[in-house]
Amino acid sequence: MSTTPWSGGAAYMHGRYMPLEEAAIPVTDLAYRRSDVTYDVVGVWGGAFFRLDDHLRRFRKSMTALRLDPGVSDDEIRTVATECVRRTGLREAYVAMDCLRGAVKPGMPRHPLNCQNYLLVYAMPWVWAISPEVQERGAHLIIAKTPRIPEASVDPTVKNFHWGDLTRGLMEAYDRGADTCVLLDYEGFVTEGPGFNVFSVTGGVVATPDRGALEGITRMSVIELCEGLGIKSEIRRISAMELRDADEIFLATTAGGIMPAARIDGRIMGNDRPGPISAKLRETFWAKRAQGWHATPIDYGA
Amino acid sequence: MSTTPWSGGAAYMHGRYMPLEEAAIPVTDLAYRRSDVTYDVVGVWGGAFFRLDDHLRRFRKSMTALRLDPGVSDDEIRTVATECVRRTGLREAYVAMDCLRGAVKPGMPRHPLNCQNYLLVYAMPWVWAISPEVQERGAHLIIAKTPRIPEASVDPTVKNFHWGDLTRGLMEAYDRGADTCVLLDYEGFVTEGPGFNVFSVTGGVVATPDRGALEGITRMSVIELCEGLGIKSEIRRISAMELRDADEIFLATTAGGIMPAARIDGRIMGNDRPGPISAKLRETFWAKRAQGWHATPIDYGA
Repeated sequence: MSTTPWSGGAAYMHGRYMPLEEAAIPVTDLAYRRSDVTYDVVGVWGGAFFRLDDHLRRFRKSMTALRLDPGVSDDEIRTVATECVRRTGLREAYVAMDCLRGAVKPGMPRHPLNCQNYLLVYAMPWVWAISPEVQERGAHLIIAKTPRIPEASVDPTVKNFHWGDLTRGLMEAYDRGADTCVLLDYEGFVTEGPGFNVFSVTGGVVATPDRGALEGITRMSVIELCEGLGIKSEIRRISAMELRDADEIFLATTAGGIMPAARIDGRIMGNDRPGPISAKLRETFWAKRAQGWHATPIDYGA
Repeated sequence: MSTTPWSGGAAYMHGRYMPLEEAAIPVTDLAYRRSDVTYDVVGVWGGAFFRLDDHLRRFRKSMTALRLDPGVSDDEIRTVATECVRRTGLREAYVAMDCLRGAVKPGMPRHPLNCQNYLLVYAMPWVWAISPEVQERGAHLIIAKTPRIPEASVDPTVKNFHWGDLTRGLMEAYDRGADTCVLLDYEGFVTEGPGFNVFSVTGGVVATPDRGALEGITRMSVIELCEGLGIKSEIRRISAMELRDADEIFLATTAGGIMPAARIDGRIMGNDRPGPISAKLRETFWAKRAQGWHATPIDYGA
């Protein structure tokens, strides 16, 4: 791939495509100034989207929940996302779609319902939430002291940028020499981490929280993989103690796939390496991806 | 004042002044994408800042709490804020100062501590959080069903854009035909509303919450005004029931001053007008402002 103005990323806003570095939002936009925005992120691997329709469905559900309407159909978003990737020429890309609240329409009272909502889509080179090197050795986790924002205040199933608690958790992880963190709810049950779902493995059974977390698309894929591999999986509450005592832990996200952990709060799990079930799921995930599982190929020649 | 490119507002970022409409932040900036940012807002009225040093002190405290460092001193921020207002020529202005997390420095691991933080300042025409007409008749409030994000997750004394709960509260207010809302904490005590502190008046005593809310500069001014007028004031917990049964309620914010309410959850307080203590405080507040109380005059000729 040659270097073009699009190599660093391509964005779309207000009916126009532009190099990612030119894509900026007004400082008075409520999407910035009130974090009044929802988004989704779909991955492109080997020149194909992964579970694009699932992401579009979740994105639409999030917009509806926040009473946001960018005035575009799912088909139009699909077309724009494809064109962004095509312009970059990237075979592996991180594709974000945001619906922003926008600014208050001229002459209207200052209220979020009086704003011109709009769509922003961009594709950029693939980003690893956790580097492949750390995934190979197994991530070092902490359970953060900062609790996750409760669902009744901000719904975590509506993907959002309310990351103050997660950022604080990342600071805690940094101070304790860990790679990343897991947050608990106010009752001490596991929720999620900064950008990923959490899974425990105990006695050969895979479990992930039933609330307080995003309903991740990769999380859904983990459940499907478990079915295919004959591994029992459960969606239910997980206490901090259960997580700390787990045989294995792994994380799941679009920007990283299935990411095994090796330590939690300083405790070494197994042989300080990704556990066998985590490693098997990760390996199967990428093998199936390479075979076109849930893939929507991109026509780069268009 | 003549119309110039600066009439709509003036902004400063990265060492450069620009018309407000040109001020935009990259879509990949963590200040937008993780709401990893703090800010403050100082008012200009009659050509002078109100309590500028108090705002600068709080802004610095907020930055420190989030481990943000824009690499500029308070004196530099004061100079930039003054220059922004001067360029607009506005005698009444809303002046925002943000410290943004920024993007990850090239070649550094993806972590908030590896970002280039920076300052954004802008001045724009004065904005009323609640219009003067509504203030005259008294605002219609509701107590929202959405609870405020708890302090342990996101500290409300560190001014932030985590407004998902407040925006939901505004939607509830809209649906119930009210002007704005007050949010409770998870134990049912009053916190704050979208951009303002809340005060109840019962039996001649003014009270405002001691936790779960921003330590507002106008709130501080209310306490000082009460002392001067011989009105007893208390900073303590206020239950939803106490607020619903109050003789009077008023709100306080930079972008509005002291703003009386007339109704709460449909109940009419007094004679459906601002109560006498609220009205007296509001009148005294603006009279003292006109006399140069806590004022830092701006030299527009510079």
